[in-house]
Amino acid sequence: MASLYQHALCPHSRFVRLALGELGATVDLVEEAPWERREAFLHLNPAGTTPVFIDTDGPPVPEAWIIAEYLDETRGLALGERRLLPEPPGARVEVRRLTGWFHTKFFEEVSGPLTFEKVVKRRLPSHQGGGGPDTGIIRAAKANIRYHLQYIGWLARTRDWLAGETMTYADLAAAAHLSVVDFLGDVPWDEDEHARNWYARIKSRPAFRPLLTDAVRGMVPAQSYADLDF
Amino acid sequence: MASLYQHALCPHSRFVRLALGELGATVDLVEEAPWERREAFLHLNPAGTTPVFIDTDGPPVPEAWIIAEYLDETRGLALGERRLLPEPPGARVEVRRLTGWFHTKFFEEVSGPLTFEKVVKRRLPSHQGGGGPDTGIIRAAKANIRYHLQYIGWLARTRDWLAGETMTYADLAAAAHLSVVDFLGDVPWDEDEHARNWYARIKSRPAFRPLLTDAVRGMVPAQSYADLDF
Repeated sequence: MASLYQHALCPHSRFVRLALGELGATVDLVEEAPWERREAFLHLNPAGTTPVFIDTDGPPVPEAWIIAEYLDETRGLALGERRLLPEPPGARVEVRRLTGWFHTKFFEEVSGPLTFEKVVKRRLPSHQGGGGPDTGIIRAAKANIRYHLQYIGWLARTRDWLAGETMTYADLAAAAHLSVVDFLGDVPWDEDEHARNWYARIKSRPAFRPLLTDAVRGMVPAQSYADLDF
Repeated sequence: MASLYQHALCPHSRFVRLALGELGATVDLVEEAPWERREAFLHLNPAGTTPVFIDTDGPPVPEAWIIAEYLDETRGLALGERRLLPEPPGARVEVRRLTGWFHTKFFEEVSGPLTFEKVVKRRLPSHQGGGGPDTGIIRAAKANIRYHLQYIGWLARTRDWLAGETMTYADLAAAAHLSVVDFLGDVPWDEDEHARNWYARIKSRPAFRPLLTDAVRGMVPAQSYADLDF
C-alpha cells in the first residue's frame, strides 16, 4: 500500500490527505514529527519537511505541491470532470496560483506561525527554541488571517469554487490551512459569511471527515471544530 | 509577442529566461522593480513578485514554478528528448524536488539574502528598510553557499546533470540562483571542482549568454562573471 509521512497538524500534510480522500486512494499514514529530524526521514526528504508520499512502486515524493502534481499525473484523469487540476493550461495556472498562495503566503503569515507557536514549540526542547508561545507573533497571525478570509470570501462570492467552476486543489489547500487554524480556535468565522459558507461545503465532504475525528496527542480541538454547522 | 515581467538580478526571473531560451521562445522583457509595488503590476500578480509571464493569448502566469509547468504544457513536447521536465512521473518528481530546492531553500539561505542586502536595499527608501547591507546576514549567506555547492558537486559527480541523464529545469534553477551570486562575486568556485565544471557547461549554452551580457543599472559584475573559463 502507498504511505504518507505526515503530521496531524501540518497543513501541507492535511492538503495531501484531502486530495487522497477525493481520489478515493487509501494510504498508510505514518505520523512524523519533522522537527525531530530523524535520520531515516531525512533520507526520504533531505529538506526534512512533511508530507512525503511513497507510492507502491515509486520514489519518495516530497512537498505538497509536488505530491499534488504527481497524484494528478498518476491518478488525476480517473476523476473525469471532478479532476482537481483541470485540463486547460489557463485554468491550471489559476489553480496553481491559489494553491501556491495558501501553501506559501497563508502559511508564512497565518498557519505557519500559529502551529509553530501553539503546537511545535511545546514539543521542542528549550535549546531548539521550545517553550511558551510568543503572544506578539500569535497576535500578528490572528490579524493577518482577516485579510486572507476576506480574499477567500471574495473568491467564493464571485466563483462557484475558489479557482473556478469546479472544486480543485485550490479549495483543498485553503481548507487544509484553515482547518489547522480552526482546530486552534483562531478563525473569526463571523467576519465573512461567504468564506464560512464555502468552508461548510468543503467540511461536509467525506474526504474531510478523518481530519475532524483524528485525535492529536496532547491537544484538544476548539469547541466547534468538528461541527458541520459551526 | 509574449512578455516577461522580470528583474535583472531576480534569480527566479533568470530561471524563466533560461527556460525560454532553451525553448527558443522570444519574449518582450519588461523590467519590474517588485519592491516598488506598482499597482498595475499587483493586478497581474497579487503576490507582487517577479517573474510574471504573459503569453500572447493567455492569462498572467506568476511564480517561477508555475511558469515552468505552463511552458512545459504549452511548449515542452516540442523539445522531444531535450524536454526540461521529462515524461516519466518518477523523473518529474526528482526534477521538481531539486527545482523547488533551489527556488526555495537556496533562495532563503543564499541568493535571497545576498540580493536583498546588496541590490534591493540600495534602492529602497530608508523607511522601507533601505540602507547599507547587513554584514552579518551577508556572512551567513556566504557560509550557507558552501554546503549547497557541495550538494551540487555531489549531484554533478553522480549523474550527468543534476536531476539525471538530461539537462532539466533543475539545472536551470541551480544555475539561475548561482548566477546572481556569481554576479555579486560570492561563489567560492575553488571549493568544488565538480560544481564548477557543471556550471561551466551550463554557462556556455546560448540561452545563458543574455544573462552574462545584460547591463544592470548602477551595478558592475564581479570580474570573472562573464568569462566562460572562470
